[in-house]
Amino acid sequence: MLNLYRRAVLGVAGFAPVAGVAKRYGPRLGARRFVAGDDAAEALDALVELRSSGREVIVDVLGEYVATADAARAMAAEVAVTIETLTRAGIAPVVSVKPTQVGLALDRDLAAEHVLQLALDAEAAGGSLALDMEDVRYVDGTLELLTRTWAGGAARTSGVLQAYLHRTPGDLEALIAAAPDPRALQVRIVKGAYAERPDLVHGDMRAIRRAFVALSERAWRAGAQVNVATHDERLILETAAFVRGANLSADKLEFQLLYGVKPGLQRTLAEAGHAVRIYVPIGRDWYGYFSRRLAERPANLAVVLRGLVG
Amino acid sequence: MLNLYRRAVLGVAGFAPVAGVAKRYGPRLGARRFVAGDDAAEALDALVELRSSGREVIVDVLGEYVATADAARAMAAEVAVTIETLTRAGIAPVVSVKPTQVGLALDRDLAAEHVLQLALDAEAAGGSLALDMEDVRYVDGTLELLTRTWAGGAARTSGVLQAYLHRTPGDLEALIAAAPDPRALQVRIVKGAYAERPDLVHGDMRAIRRAFVALSERAWRAGAQVNVATHDERLILETAAFVRGANLSADKLEFQLLYGVKPGLQRTLAEAGHAVRIYVPIGRDWYGYFSRRLAERPANLAVVLRGLVG
Repeated sequence: MLNLYRRAVLGVAGFAPVAGVAKRYGPRLGARRFVAGDDAAEALDALVELRSSGREVIVDVLGEYVATADAARAMAAEVAVTIETLTRAGIAPVVSVKPTQVGLALDRDLAAEHVLQLALDAEAAGGSLALDMEDVRYVDGTLELLTRTWAGGAARTSGVLQAYLHRTPGDLEALIAAAPDPRALQVRIVKGAYAERPDLVHGDMRAIRRAFVALSERAWRAGAQVNVATHDERLILETAAFVRGANLSADKLEFQLLYGVKPGLQRTLAEAGHAVRIYVPIGRDWYGYFSRRLAERPANLAVVLRGLVG
Repeated sequence: MLNLYRRAVLGVAGFAPVAGVAKRYGPRLGARRFVAGDDAAEALDALVELRSSGREVIVDVLGEYVATADAARAMAAEVAVTIETLTRAGIAPVVSVKPTQVGLALDRDLAAEHVLQLALDAEAAGGSLALDMEDVRYVDGTLELLTRTWAGGAARTSGVLQAYLHRTPGDLEALIAAAPDPRALQVRIVKGAYAERPDLVHGDMRAIRRAFVALSERAWRAGAQVNVATHDERLILETAAFVRGANLSADKLEFQLLYGVKPGLQRTLAEAGHAVRIYVPIGRDWYGYFSRRLAERPANLAVVLRGLVG
């Protein structure tokens, strides 16, 4: 049912006429609630406000599935500018990059070159790069990118694991084995938001939650830092309880939530003393990201409806 | 709001004409779903069925706030018969007793005598006694009963802590200090179901949940066995996660649920390998117990409504 809803929304969103109209009326449709600005400079106020309330930020330049090497280079350049802008503003540049945004769908070496350069830039400025995970066609390529980036000297580069995929426990084992030092490994765990083939994913929320928790605990047992990236309060409570039980140091758990989603929960977690980092998208290519937010949570559709009538 | 709902339902339930009608039509009102039989012999089939599906049992002879010493003695005798009946049926007699059922509201020494005798009987037959906790007027007396029973040689007697009361963290510290061996201490933690004065209890569910979790974790850190007695799946997930994190042996956590409430959840927990014990009330004095079940969960009213129309 869950997978069906996700596939339906993403199917409609991917239908060209719908996409055309939606992109034209985007800001009115509520996209602005989830996107902080057209570029890093425009988003700075929002970033500063988040940080003043105890929330760290991770900035994502929107964009994915680019079709040409030139577009991939342009995207990488935009991320490089973002790193610079953040650094100049006194914010350690923690940035997120989608592999297909910098060319993974075109040329693995090109993508690897971009990712390594951006990761080295970010680390040189006291930050780090997070390599996002996309649909299942790119999982193998992304895991390879990650190990190549570590080997290239950007050891703080973090990866993402999607709990809904059946294959993910094996991927986690591979990452643990490949990490130069598992205690320096940093993985973000998410439920997963793409429209995947039903036989590749867990079909119901209970199974996804169980998988999420099992992945987190396995990563902690290996010594990793786990970035629990969900708005599901059950998962937040459950992972925090494990960390208390295991008496792990506070820096082994970071909650990551999306800009504009459950701001009250974001504040509550920060006030309770947890490390909290907000994933802040910037840029104009917001349609795919926005569609996945609608697909994963029916309540987000209310934002769109309010935008249409108001 | 929560406290208000509970007080409203218990207020109506305590109104004499309502109580009179309800007691006459009790079985039709759905009480049978929550009470296994008029006595232990009548409940044996239900007990055997529970045990055959991996659930242990704790049997409670219904009755509370008795008004005379004779009634207290009669109640104690009924509990003694229950211990015998269970033992003869090959079931280790784990039984629950309410302090006011055996005379606490009349005479502390009388109650202490009954509790110690029943606890020694139960332990001699390979079981143990659980001392229930009632409204806040009897908390001090019950804690005293517990330490006297331990001192009398029934060291496996367990106590209950009610998370909604502001005073409970201090009570837990007192129990830990008084226990002959904190590693042999066994406490049941519940949210609390009585209509208490608002200034004595946490007013909202979040605060009660936080208190529940904090009490459990404090007891585990002291080495105790915690009996997590709730149907709240968040609390079940959260406490189990702490136990996994702390790598505690499986016998340090027992889930306790009420007969007839969420049987699917009961089975799921047992199948997942958790220790699960079902609190099975028997007897004819079911009205107070039944009213608290309605007061703590609006969904339980549906059982009553179905009983009235069906």
